[in-house]
Amino acid sequence: MKTVTEPQEANALAAAKPVRVGMLGFGTVGSGAYRMLDLNREAIQRKIGAPVDVVRIGVRDLSKERIADRSLFTDDLQSIVDDPEIEVILELIGGVDPAGDLVERALQGGKHVVTANKELIAKKGAPLIRLASERGLDLHFEAAAGGGIPLIQPLRHQLSGNDVIGMKGILNGTTNVILTRMTQEGVSLEAALLEAQALGYAEADPTADVDGHDAQYKLAILASIAFGKEVRPESVYREGIRQLTAIDIGYADKLGYTIKLLAIVDAVEGEGVLARVHPTLIPKTHPLASVNDVYNALWVRGDFVGDLMFSGRGAGAEATGSAVVGDLIDICRNIRIGGAGNTMPWETTANTRPIEELKTSYYVRLIVQDRPMVLGEIATLFGRRNVSLSAMEMKVIDTKGKRGEIAFLTHLCVERDFRQAIKDLKDSDAVISVENWIRVEE
Amino acid sequence: MKTVTEPQEANALAAAKPVRVGMLGFGTVGSGAYRMLDLNREAIQRKIGAPVDVVRIGVRDLSKERIADRSLFTDDLQSIVDDPEIEVILELIGGVDPAGDLVERALQGGKHVVTANKELIAKKGAPLIRLASERGLDLHFEAAAGGGIPLIQPLRHQLSGNDVIGMKGILNGTTNVILTRMTQEGVSLEAALLEAQALGYAEADPTADVDGHDAQYKLAILASIAFGKEVRPESVYREGIRQLTAIDIGYADKLGYTIKLLAIVDAVEGEGVLARVHPTLIPKTHPLASVNDVYNALWVRGDFVGDLMFSGRGAGAEATGSAVVGDLIDICRNIRIGGAGNTMPWETTANTRPIEELKTSYYVRLIVQDRPMVLGEIATLFGRRNVSLSAMEMKVIDTKGKRGEIAFLTHLCVERDFRQAIKDLKDSDAVISVENWIRVEE
Repeated sequence: MKTVTEPQEANALAAAKPVRVGMLGFGTVGSGAYRMLDLNREAIQRKIGAPVDVVRIGVRDLSKERIADRSLFTDDLQSIVDDPEIEVILELIGGVDPAGDLVERALQGGKHVVTANKELIAKKGAPLIRLASERGLDLHFEAAAGGGIPLIQPLRHQLSGNDVIGMKGILNGTTNVILTRMTQEGVSLEAALLEAQALGYAEADPTADVDGHDAQYKLAILASIAFGKEVRPESVYREGIRQLTAIDIGYADKLGYTIKLLAIVDAVEGEGVLARVHPTLIPKTHPLASVNDVYNALWVRGDFVGDLMFSGRGAGAEATGSAVVGDLIDICRNIRIGGAGNTMPWETTANTRPIEELKTSYYVRLIVQDRPMVLGEIATLFGRRNVSLSAMEMKVIDTKGKRGEIAFLTHLCVERDFRQAIKDLKDSDAVISVENWIRVEE
Repeated sequence: MKTVTEPQEANALAAAKPVRVGMLGFGTVGSGAYRMLDLNREAIQRKIGAPVDVVRIGVRDLSKERIADRSLFTDDLQSIVDDPEIEVILELIGGVDPAGDLVERALQGGKHVVTANKELIAKKGAPLIRLASERGLDLHFEAAAGGGIPLIQPLRHQLSGNDVIGMKGILNGTTNVILTRMTQEGVSLEAALLEAQALGYAEADPTADVDGHDAQYKLAILASIAFGKEVRPESVYREGIRQLTAIDIGYADKLGYTIKLLAIVDAVEGEGVLARVHPTLIPKTHPLASVNDVYNALWVRGDFVGDLMFSGRGAGAEATGSAVVGDLIDICRNIRIGGAGNTMPWETTANTRPIEELKTSYYVRLIVQDRPMVLGEIATLFGRRNVSLSAMEMKVIDTKGKRGEIAFLTHLCVERDFRQAIKDLKDSDAVISVENWIRVEE
């Protein structure tokens, strides 16, 4: 809704000292944020009580066409973080280097910072947040996980009275587009990836998304916020979607499940957390199962609040720009009313548990000898490792060669035992090959 | 996850001056909040950097058994808001009187306030928020809409750069329990209400829920926050669920819809908003259609962020207590770091539009003469008022008396025209009775 400012009020606002903002980076997120500040300028000014002026924009390539005035741009990024007139820095470059040094220098110089940089916050968040806290500055990064969906601040504020029991999320839009295509159209991963690249949903080098790094960074950040202790990205178990086939998606469907790349963290006994990113079978009736395409979602369980779910667009210029501008408005209001920064450092590092300790159920697909007793032999091998089977789908795939394909679901078991069972199966005469295995969430 | 405080840190925290809190009311929400503060005491203390002490609790009836120490209780509520030692008041009485005067007095006395009181904030929020803002105090009310789901603060903060285009929500748990029962089991409203009362989901006098007052207050608050202008509760069109029958739910189902009590607000052309609470047909594929039982949800569309949805438990001691404690933690952290209150008053009243200007589609069920040409006569009557029909279900209900029942869906039309068409139908010989009509959202 466009709002019209009354004349005398407009004068009062125009008289208020503008908040001067410097931007680092002007790619997808940067230009999205800039456009939002421009289009919704009046409403934003009313909310802050002063205008927001983007006074400098740092980019690598000065020759590109930009939607902002050419005179704002510079390729000397350091001069922006050192500019004494600038009060807030928006760091929208991405990556650790040089973004990390620039953010640190900005905080050292007394500037508040908004960043959308998940890799930086996941890897170097703890010391940067501590620095901001010591200086009474804000370091906001709502856009670093879940794009436009408010996740980080609600976890830090409205949900902060809860002991978080667990969270599960779809945090990467690119892989969700690919999996949605594979599920709905039965195409291969390669075909779905090519289509996503053609449509601009996946990058030329899709490693960060397809191999789960992006979701790993985001989960590390969300888990750190939710548990109030640093969860290092390298302590988040990570497995991408490259091993997934249309065949597995088909079996999952028959068994009543959808396959999603989930980012999961659970509080475990003995003061620990177990955080992991991997393809996961979830029941079709679970609310996350119907989160498709570029949509992201986070499901949270707290001891008092119970189950919550947040969903929305997890990527894109406009949604991510919305989160950056929301953070910026907060900081500007704080500056205007004279409030101090309110950044909460993580005091300790979380006690993270290895994936071998995970207790979950599994989907496993085997190619087996099509002969009597083979099922009994397989069940016995699983049973010896304390893995019991709960469901099965099978078909003969080669009558001449006498080969069959079987997909099993297991009951809950410990990952260490399950992996041992998989080794045993590979060594068994009954099993020609273990084609795939995927974790299941109920 | 329980956290263990390191000894030297525990000493530092114990040395920090506790934040002293007074509670007004100790019913469902009050005891829920108290229990959360007690159970998660250590983690909350770490987040704030100081202990939170509930030092006085005001109740009407001192003789009741309580989960808190008897010495904390008093029936002199005014003495709590006047106590100079108390920094934060939790108002959890409900209703406008005496809660309104107590909150005002607390703010006048320089105390921050958290309230879960939707009626008070909907009816008297504007002056109270202005008062808090003038005094540099916080007046938080996250629990007033959506129970434990973070809605109000995300709209005020993370989404504040957006022009909100519209919101639709299921904001009342009691009616959602009743409608879920009617839909899933085909029982009557009366039976579903009795069951809900027996299970404690509905009160002995269900008026506030069943007639939509509760949802009306909550929508007035959420719309005021989203649009940054006061939306008065009396300008929210309100219709409860009493007219709903299992027959209508059955026809809706055949047509591909579920019936929910929705709270809807849309930005309309010419700087206005149209806010309304009424039973609504929504497609079964809409994310709100699968929000059942006591769950609440809010779907938000912003110009940059796109579509978001938040869902979770909308009521109950623990979920609502979670929101109250989240607000309290925020205020305590602000007090500790010396931040000022950050309350944004609504500068103006929104230009709200009457329901007659609504443009939507409708479901209508008629009992008609079962004779040739009757359908043509009805379609003609609708057509004269610019209402065209998009779908129909019919059955003969009385072969002797020659009566039939028809359910129609219309295309988009203006409510004023639609109501005129309903009048025309009532006057027509072809129509024996207009049994019901309900708005539809696509």
